[in-house]
Amino acid sequence: MDMELWYTEKQTPDHGITSKIRRTLYHEQTDFQSMDVIETKTFGRMLVLDGMVMTTDEDEFVYHEMLTHVGMFTHPNPKKVLVVGGGDGGAIREVLKHPSVEKAVLCEIDGRVIDVSREYFPAIAGALSDERVDIQVADGIQHIEAHKGEYDVILVDSTEPVGPAVGLFQKPFYQGIYDALKPDGIMVAQTESPWFNRDLIAQVYQDISSIFPVARLYTASIPTYPSGLWSFTLGSKGKDPLSVDVSEIPELETKYFQPELFHALFKLPRFVEVLTQGEK
Amino acid sequence: MDMELWYTEKQTPDHGITSKIRRTLYHEQTDFQSMDVIETKTFGRMLVLDGMVMTTDEDEFVYHEMLTHVGMFTHPNPKKVLVVGGGDGGAIREVLKHPSVEKAVLCEIDGRVIDVSREYFPAIAGALSDERVDIQVADGIQHIEAHKGEYDVILVDSTEPVGPAVGLFQKPFYQGIYDALKPDGIMVAQTESPWFNRDLIAQVYQDISSIFPVARLYTASIPTYPSGLWSFTLGSKGKDPLSVDVSEIPELETKYFQPELFHALFKLPRFVEVLTQGEK
Repeated sequence: MDMELWYTEKQTPDHGITSKIRRTLYHEQTDFQSMDVIETKTFGRMLVLDGMVMTTDEDEFVYHEMLTHVGMFTHPNPKKVLVVGGGDGGAIREVLKHPSVEKAVLCEIDGRVIDVSREYFPAIAGALSDERVDIQVADGIQHIEAHKGEYDVILVDSTEPVGPAVGLFQKPFYQGIYDALKPDGIMVAQTESPWFNRDLIAQVYQDISSIFPVARLYTASIPTYPSGLWSFTLGSKGKDPLSVDVSEIPELETKYFQPELFHALFKLPRFVEVLTQGEK
Repeated sequence: MDMELWYTEKQTPDHGITSKIRRTLYHEQTDFQSMDVIETKTFGRMLVLDGMVMTTDEDEFVYHEMLTHVGMFTHPNPKKVLVVGGGDGGAIREVLKHPSVEKAVLCEIDGRVIDVSREYFPAIAGALSDERVDIQVADGIQHIEAHKGEYDVILVDSTEPVGPAVGLFQKPFYQGIYDALKPDGIMVAQTESPWFNRDLIAQVYQDISSIFPVARLYTASIPTYPSGLWSFTLGSKGKDPLSVDVSEIPELETKYFQPELFHALFKLPRFVEVLTQGEK
């Protein structure tokens, strides 16, 4: 009888998920983080950075669709898009589903994430070979400082707020994004769990509200992320997503997002909505 | 140094949650199931039946509010309400927040769940002492057969579809509920995870659609339940929840439900909506 291998992520010091794995596929200590690829029985292949699940075959569609399409459909005509982080390529894949896009820049600090994703997650990373994609292995904070007023949409597809991603949850970074956006530009950032990261969500919402004329919070169900509920924070220099005419949103090939979900996303459970009102 | 105790629930054969516990508080093998009360660091006290989390101090509000208020606010004037299962009393607590309610019947097959909940979960079970509550320690299927045309709202607060609750997920039970409801009656059942129980949800939705003129599916985020996303299926002999005027819903003291969430609940992610269309 083979031994049973289980991967356990402590999502908080006292709680986590545990998943049976068929085999470990890859391990590397990159210049920035520890990186593992494992094959789980329930969620397929799983990319793990610094011990935390980043993406899995089975539920990656939720995170990548929901990070991308809400902001992209709020913008009237997104041509030039930046993804900060997101080396697995999933957000870029979703960005490229929008025919208006002429250029999609991926700015990922750890080039090894890109290489390993291409090898082990071709369904996620495959779009990185599209000719509209410009891959920059570089620091996202420096990139936005060097590209003022250039982007229509900027998506922040960061790891958790530890290690290389700490600066991506701080106010100066959001100000930098504001400056890197065109006058009607829109940003969306992944902003952790409404169950486990309430202080962070409230702080980021306050920071983005203080910089952008429009700030909105929404959530999605991601079973391999802490608590299974994940939040995204949108900042807009132009259009408010609440004023989007849903009948004008074209159908894309998606598994989670659909046009009729668009406005419902901003109706939040009370314990989540209070995070936008300065409570925690 | 004390040993570390962790409770692990395999929510599928190959995936689950694990939670550090301060101590075990109670264990009993009842006539129907194994019952444990443990104190976790992240979610407070946790009631575990047959090894599966039923409720916790920290996230119980979601399940109990969302099982209860959607159906209760769809009904124009719910006076007599039945909860099948739900021995912890949480659904009854929410039912009693509606001033129209004259009688709330709890029909729980395992009286020990009621006793232990009263002792270890007073904030959840306390409402069971309200004078409007009629506690029946009995089989839910037999109860509904003996009470035809009596109820305005019936809530099915069952355990998972194994052991004593198997019959509560089958079509004859839903037909029995239909018969136990008054002409404008409404039922809501907890119907498991859209990630892990797709066949079951599709089957239950089809069964309820074939019996009730109106069937609706909605979801809520419950971190200690499998996948973190939970589904509820509503059947109505009268009003369609989609036709409820939200401006007429009074504010209750709730932490998850709020009136402006009401219609948004029925806008489903595409991978969930297909379950209502015969796909899986």
